[in-house]
Amino acid sequence: MGSTKLILLLFCLLLVISTSAATQKKISREPCKTLVVYFHDILYNGQNAENATSAIVAAPAWGKKTILAEPTHFGDIIVFDDPITLDNNLHSTPVGRAQGLYLYDGKHTFNTWFGFSFTFNSTGHKGSITLAGADPFLEKTRDIPVIGGTGDFFMARGIATFMTDAFEGEVYFRVRVNISLYECW
Amino acid sequence: MGSTKLILLLFCLLLVISTSAATQKKISREPCKTLVVYFHDILYNGQNAENATSAIVAAPAWGKKTILAEPTHFGDIIVFDDPITLDNNLHSTPVGRAQGLYLYDGKHTFNTWFGFSFTFNSTGHKGSITLAGADPFLEKTRDIPVIGGTGDFFMARGIATFMTDAFEGEVYFRVRVNISLYECW
Amino acid sequence: MGSTKLILLLFCLLLVISTSAATQKKISREPCKTLVVYFHDILYNGQNAENATSAIVAAPAWGKKTILAEPTHFGDIIVFDDPITLDNNLHSTPVGRAQGLYLYDGKHTFNTWFGFSFTFNSTGHKGSITLAGADPFLEKTRDIPVIGGTGDFFMARGIATFMTDAFEGEVYFRVRVNISLYECW
Repeated sequence: MGSTKLILLLFCLLLVISTSAATQKKISREPCKTLVVYFHDILYNGQNAENATSAIVAAPAWGKKTILAEPTHFGDIIVFDDPITLDNNLHSTPVGRAQGLYLYDGKHTFNTWFGFSFTFNSTGHKGSITLAGADPFLEKTRDIPVIGGTGDFFMARGIATFMTDAFEGEVYFRVRVNISLYECW
Repeated sequence: MGSTKLILLLFCLLLVISTSAATQKKISREPCKTLVVYFHDILYNGQNAENATSAIVAAPAWGKKTILAEPTHFGDIIVFDDPITLDNNLHSTPVGRAQGLYLYDGKHTFNTWFGFSFTFNSTGHKGSITLAGADPFLEKTRDIPVIGGTGDFFMARGIATFMTDAFEGEVYFRVRVNISLYECW
Repeated sequence: MGSTKLILLLFCLLLVISTSAATQKKISREPCKTLVVYFHDILYNGQNAENATSAIVAAPAWGKKTILAEPTHFGDIIVFDDPITLDNNLHSTPVGRAQGLYLYDGKHTFNTWFGFSFTFNSTGHKGSITLAGADPFLEKTRDIPVIGGTGDFFMARGIATFMTDAFEGEVYFRVRVNISLYECW
């Protein structure tokens, strides 16, 4: 066998080894999984117990539990159990729940911080992702880190881009979320 | 072209490919570290200040701090300082503490969300892991993401599987936790 | 030396290199990015509304919102909007904000747990990192996991080492933070 032929064979072999290379997770600047969902939040205001999906559960000394604290809601913590839908219709069949807490943590400007999970329970996806991070919601798009996952989203990491899709008074808001996972197992 | 020259070229090429490579962490579908622990939670009810390891610190407008809100405890936030043991005996010598918060975030069903750390301080382990995620505790087993760690658990990621081991009224519960780390440094 | 022999040697060498290989993110025991910042926390005590950067928003049944609960502040949750500076001077121009929550979760000892973000908005850095973990603040140095990031800190992971730099009564504290990222994209 000629050494040139052998070299070529060797080259191909090593290229294959290197390319499939030695980690079992896919990591790249291209997302390995993307998902677009909407979640809908109806805040309890003392009169909408039936429809509300969230409630103020903690507030600063100057706050209350039936109305957000003035002027920037600083210090209010909200627990939520919001439906997730695939389109922007509150009445579409939910594909899961967004559950956890958010809090207003801007003293002079509007700012929130989320710690919560999307739990999917549809034919398309089973499992959950956990998100935690700042949501400066007056900006058009905001990135919130996806820090872990279970089930179909085992060990996932990535970014969820929030876009406010509707904002009605201080009772209803809807957020469009573009989820891009960059670590998939 | 001489085969030696070709080999050298090949060598350089592959060296470049390989050098852009090379991670120092072990990643695989097999856990790199496993651990089984129990944690014990005794909720403050207004009369057990001595023994309680946790307390309701936030509640919705219709709730109180000495009893969980009806019907699904929605909106209650609990801060806890629970002992970790290696067996299911509350009175075994603790190997660390489970500390942080959990909240009830199911409006129509029972659901919780945890954000906390296991801090180990025994001869076996020194360091902590941080966990965050949904715990739908009526299910027999639930997976909660391990999102970070320190000390012996530096940069760890993985999954903690919760199994309710005891549930007595609404004051005591014990959870068995199978921790499987998939990223170890 | 025969070229076949050389090829075999080369093959073995490259096999070893390739097997340990290939992810597109840089991971090593050496940090890929480091940063030193200070954050400053002034707790609302009922009389300092103007200057306060944080407020007690949840407390156990025996607590209040204008003073930390005795004896170890167990159960208090604080929401904060603290300035970040590059030196230890509260009045230096902030390079961003530390925003989120911390809670006292030691029943018999002092302990806290943080869930928050550093959001940078200076010429040096744009983006945010999310941190979550235990801060046993009586220890001289404590490690808190960095669990995610956005912008310049896209997908970051690492460790933030907290060192209390000042502690005045129960109203002001300043923390020096050495941030070391071990996963950079």
